Amino acid sequence: MRNGFPPTTAPAGRRTAGTTLLVLDADPPPRLGRLTGRARIVHTDEEGLPRLLPTADVLLVWDFTSHAVRRAWPGEGPRPRWVHTASAGVDHVLCPELAASDTVVTNARGVFDRPVAEYVAALVLAMAKDLPRTWDLQRERRWRHRETQRVAGTRAVVVGSGPIGRAVVATLKALGITTALVGRVPKTGIHGPADLDRLMARADWVVSAAPLTESTRGMFDARRFGTMQPSARFVNVGRGALVDEDALAEALAKRWIAGAALDVFRDEPLGPESPLWGLPGLIVSPHMSGDVVGWRDELGAQFVELYERWAAGRQLRNVVDKKRGYVPGH
Amino acid sequence: MRNGFPPTTAPAGRRTAGTTLLVLDADPPPRLGRLTGRARIVHTDEEGLPRLLPTADVLLVWDFTSHAVRRAWPGEGPRPRWVHTASAGVDHVLCPELAASDTVVTNARGVFDRPVAEYVAALVLAMAKDLPRTWDLQRERRWRHRETQRVAGTRAVVVGSGPIGRAVVATLKALGITTALVGRVPKTGIHGPADLDRLMARADWVVSAAPLTESTRGMFDARRFGTMQPSARFVNVGRGALVDEDALAEALAKRWIAGAALDVFRDEPLGPESPLWGLPGLIVSPHMSGDVVGWRDELGAQFVELYERWAAGRQLRNVVDKKRGYVPGH
Repeated sequence: MRNGFPPTTAPAGRRTAGTTLLVLDADPPPRLGRLTGRARIVHTDEEGLPRLLPTADVLLVWDFTSHAVRRAWPGEGPRPRWVHTASAGVDHVLCPELAASDTVVTNARGVFDRPVAEYVAALVLAMAKDLPRTWDLQRERRWRHRETQRVAGTRAVVVGSGPIGRAVVATLKALGITTALVGRVPKTGIHGPADLDRLMARADWVVSAAPLTESTRGMFDARRFGTMQPSARFVNVGRGALVDEDALAEALAKRWIAGAALDVFRDEPLGPESPLWGLPGLIVSPHMSGDVVGWRDELGAQFVELYERWAAGRQLRNVVDKKRGYVPGH
Repeated sequence: MRNGFPPTTAPAGRRTAGTTLLVLDADPPPRLGRLTGRARIVHTDEEGLPRLLPTADVLLVWDFTSHAVRRAWPGEGPRPRWVHTASAGVDHVLCPELAASDTVVTNARGVFDRPVAEYVAALVLAMAKDLPRTWDLQRERRWRHRETQRVAGTRAVVVGSGPIGRAVVATLKALGITTALVGRVPKTGIHGPADLDRLMARADWVVSAAPLTESTRGMFDARRFGTMQPSARFVNVGRGALVDEDALAEALAKRWIAGAALDVFRDEPLGPESPLWGLPGLIVSPHMSGDVVGWRDELGAQFVELYERWAAGRQLRNVVDKKRGYVPGH
């Protein structure tokens, strides 16, 4: 054990072609061809997972929409030594048994940072420039001049001080927006949770880019939306369950806030019956903020690189602190 | 005469309450109250303009959508010594007779730069992140994940090297976009027109922020759209007549280019019968790119400041080179 973490290298004798790499996927990941002859690669769907999980040395959770690992994780007996999820969030794999085990969990830290930051900038600018209304008016063939908002000089608070939150801050700053970053623990340049209410009350933009943990679940609730300015807007690119969706709907309906954009939801995919689709002032997008052209390829290449480190007996990167529920530190 | 320009200060004896300030407006401009007792302020609409124009010392073209000045400008006899238009473009006032006269023309240089740059960034990001399609899908309550484009590392060419074009370049650069600026005359950091075709052929984004002059009218034509990459997109925030709208429609229909956004049009307001409203891949907005909350107030304050300079016998700023059709230099 190092720094309180379980060993993050392959155990001796497992770094060979005899290693079983189990891949939970719907479509096969790119780039795994590079591991030909260096691992026995077995693909499975959710149904086959419980049976195959005890046979695997390594589990690649490629289908990051699946919660099957939580359900299938073996409490006792053989289990993978390493689980990698091709996502920034790890809440969909981190069941208590996995968290308590000495299995290493890694994530796709780094792949999504800049794309998500650009997506947040796109949403902020779209709302400031009233683009959704522009689309409605174009559809109705109506010429209606409106005044828009200048984003330079406005204030944003970004919740979540990981690489994504920091990239969001950098991009909003580049647009002249004054930013504050909030993390779990205050440190230089990062506010602690105690400052959040005060910062939200002054913000024009509140951006959620936090991991989903027991302390962040439902953190954006009626009380917090109530602290926001009526002119302010809320953006969630973190995890759906960070937000009390009913409270957000009420905050929009009652004009506590001026608008919101959600890219993530408590239940995904959002069904056609969800009232969120039709909520005035809400922009709904289907969990795609970080998914730029080439993202699957990057995720595949990232896993292959991690696998090669692991097989070579070197320290893994992107190792999740399973108690906190994310990759700590800078 | 200084630098080839007509005198840009008030003639002696005209700097008093006896000065007649004629205001062409629909709604009265803010801030003119500060000139109470320092000018006789007369408001007119388009109809009254021909009769009142010869009586005015100063003309404030507040209604910048009007082309009435072109039509009403007196060829002979008394006429205003100074014309100010509350807009960046001056093509709607600069008739040949005004251009040939010794009347000074000034514009609203400086007020729109940053807002227009933000608007261009909003359009670029909205297109890269496929937001128009996101709105359509939201309306249809359909969850359809798509891959989006990363803007960092893409290439933009910005046509028009005035303050607006330069602000657009600065904002796009801040988003990690590689930019090239094209002006009338090549100089350090600015390409000349001879480079335009080559730059357009490599660009992901072509942004038009040029003034409308005889040499820029219709410059974005079928041939130029034909040089663009099929994945590239075109944005016009300059003047409508810079673009051959039929050629753009054809370029979009034939997929010569991937998309476009027009904020300005040959004929404004765009009538409901215009085919542009319904063109797939085209975003239509009603000439509002620079019009942030407070813009009218800024325009009013800017004119009052210029008026005070003029009345004090000091050099005016924002003096238009009437031959070129814009305010030259940095």
